[in-house]
Amino acid sequence: MIPAEAGRPSLADTAGAGARPAAKPHLAVVGATGAVGRVLLGILSERADVWGEIRLIASARSAGRKLTVRGEEVEVVALSEDAFDGIDVAMFDLPDEVAAQWVPVAVSKGAVVVDNSGAFRGDPEVPLVVPEVNGCAARMRPRGIIANPNCTTLSMIVALGALHAEYGLSELVVSSYQAASGVGQAGAETLRAQLSAVSGTGLGAAPGDVRRAIGDTLGPFPAPLALNVVPWAGSLQADGWSSEELKIRDECRKILGLPELPVTATCVRVPVLTTHSMAVHARFENEVTVAGAHEILAAAPGVVLFDDPAAGEYPTPSDVVGTDPTWVGRVRRSLDDPRALELFVCGDNLRKGAALNAAQIGELVVGELRG
Amino acid sequence: MIPAEAGRPSLADTAGAGARPAAKPHLAVVGATGAVGRVLLGILSERADVWGEIRLIASARSAGRKLTVRGEEVEVVALSEDAFDGIDVAMFDLPDEVAAQWVPVAVSKGAVVVDNSGAFRGDPEVPLVVPEVNGCAARMRPRGIIANPNCTTLSMIVALGALHAEYGLSELVVSSYQAASGVGQAGAETLRAQLSAVSGTGLGAAPGDVRRAIGDTLGPFPAPLALNVVPWAGSLQADGWSSEELKIRDECRKILGLPELPVTATCVRVPVLTTHSMAVHARFENEVTVAGAHEILAAAPGVVLFDDPAAGEYPTPSDVVGTDPTWVGRVRRSLDDPRALELFVCGDNLRKGAALNAAQIGELVVGELRG
Repeated sequence: MIPAEAGRPSLADTAGAGARPAAKPHLAVVGATGAVGRVLLGILSERADVWGEIRLIASARSAGRKLTVRGEEVEVVALSEDAFDGIDVAMFDLPDEVAAQWVPVAVSKGAVVVDNSGAFRGDPEVPLVVPEVNGCAARMRPRGIIANPNCTTLSMIVALGALHAEYGLSELVVSSYQAASGVGQAGAETLRAQLSAVSGTGLGAAPGDVRRAIGDTLGPFPAPLALNVVPWAGSLQADGWSSEELKIRDECRKILGLPELPVTATCVRVPVLTTHSMAVHARFENEVTVAGAHEILAAAPGVVLFDDPAAGEYPTPSDVVGTDPTWVGRVRRSLDDPRALELFVCGDNLRKGAALNAAQIGELVVGELRG
Repeated sequence: MIPAEAGRPSLADTAGAGARPAAKPHLAVVGATGAVGRVLLGILSERADVWGEIRLIASARSAGRKLTVRGEEVEVVALSEDAFDGIDVAMFDLPDEVAAQWVPVAVSKGAVVVDNSGAFRGDPEVPLVVPEVNGCAARMRPRGIIANPNCTTLSMIVALGALHAEYGLSELVVSSYQAASGVGQAGAETLRAQLSAVSGTGLGAAPGDVRRAIGDTLGPFPAPLALNVVPWAGSLQADGWSSEELKIRDECRKILGLPELPVTATCVRVPVLTTHSMAVHARFENEVTVAGAHEILAAAPGVVLFDDPAAGEYPTPSDVVGTDPTWVGRVRRSLDDPRALELFVCGDNLRKGAALNAAQIGELVVGELRG
């Protein structure tokens, strides 16, 4: 079901079940020059080509730049109402407050929006979609918006969804190991600059040594990231929680359809460029076995089971970066609770954690027209 | 109570409650040239000088080297039975199998041994001691051995012990962020070498890039550590657990006197030189409050409460390294469980995590003579 969007031509109108062949819908990538946008252009170039025009939209500052998608150079146009003329689907990766302003503009111009900001994820009229877990939810979008989950949630939710379907999730305790690029290109660039500043200095033996070495290159981080870990991601919320920690709780509940699920998270930034990792303690309604969990994970779409410590096999960010699946290893049953599993999960925060999931949602929308 | 050690002069004999002033006992540092040994020499030089001779013992390879302790150069002697002549207390930091062989030798020569290996920690006749938590246990040592806990346990146990005393611990779920020096000097040197190899290369976008850049500099780690996190520490045990994860469970139970405590851990190495961090989910028998936890932690000996996210205050390894206390921040009450707290804890794995705790245990033994 595609809700009608008052009085304008919509995807449903232009490409419905009628007799004429469906034209390929037109896509806008909004925030095309950012860290997620660039990865998205690569992903759109790799996957089955379901799109007509791919229009690249960014801030006025970036307008006129040329980026390559599907092997062709495309000039970036400035974000404006007119930029959405003729667009069927728009994938947004902009800061929350900018998305809050411009997503409704794109919708008003007739586009279905796949939004990667946090602006709409909590809206009960906006589905929060992970195709492998709750793809059907994408069809119910009364506001014309489908939200893409946060990269941290996305780094683990495909694996958790598969286990939940079999065992029934009853509690989550997660600790994150989040990459610098989770805050965008400035994060990765800052980490590279900090690494250059500390490399070869013999640092690390006294308090504040690293802080002194990196000088004023904190970038978007609240503390040095090179040779350090920082237990903070996002903004301060009530009772000492970070926004990133609350997102994990809210988004897991919404995606899994478990509004009362106990979820507690501690989010920590680590000196990794790209790929988030999560240590997950997952308790279920039913008893679990490692063999059973292995079987579920090995069969789950979008999951790679990589779990043979005797052979040195467990996922690490440097081996996972640049790949699409969620990688799962270190599967153990809690020694004191036959209903709980421990997992270590890695996912590329720019691919499945953002751009790939958005591309998959876009393909679901296109598929509605074809189906 | 100091158990008699058959027929030989013992600490109890030479420095008991008799009339003559107690001579300062003689100390041996065994493994003096290692990462922990070197930090221990610094700590012995900083703290109240309770020792007579401080003898430095290491492998024959290191014999003849001179190291500084208490401002004086001391020549390292080779590990041998004679090396323990006249020694009252011996602090060992050697690999498990070497400690298993030589600790009994030192005991047979009349020394009380404070052992930092894993060889004796599980022995019910060997107390596992953290002075702030269970210092009294040091007095019951029928084998003449006191075990120093693993650095990972030590990085959090002082804070947990304080909270347990008030609230009654009922479950622990922990995820570690362990520093390279946790595996000794080779760990820190390997991380430095890897950082130099990847610095300035623009790496991190494709799977295996980091692995290719660092070439054969894996050192003691099973995977690249620079720009990576590695969910493995220690050796493979039954059912997919690492030895480090099981140590946390066994040692927390023993130190806290809670042999049935449910404990589950995932141990992860991070590209930090020194200072372990832990994300801790601790459930208690009683309801908790953040204000109450703050009060307990602020008053706890050996703990620094550093928890004001609005002011950017939470512990990170680069600020904690080189300091003695356990630093605690990010104190939150679980949103779904009024009996559970989330914490982020940092401790210098070479100081409180190893050398400092050993020095403190040594001082407890000396104190028995004085008291």
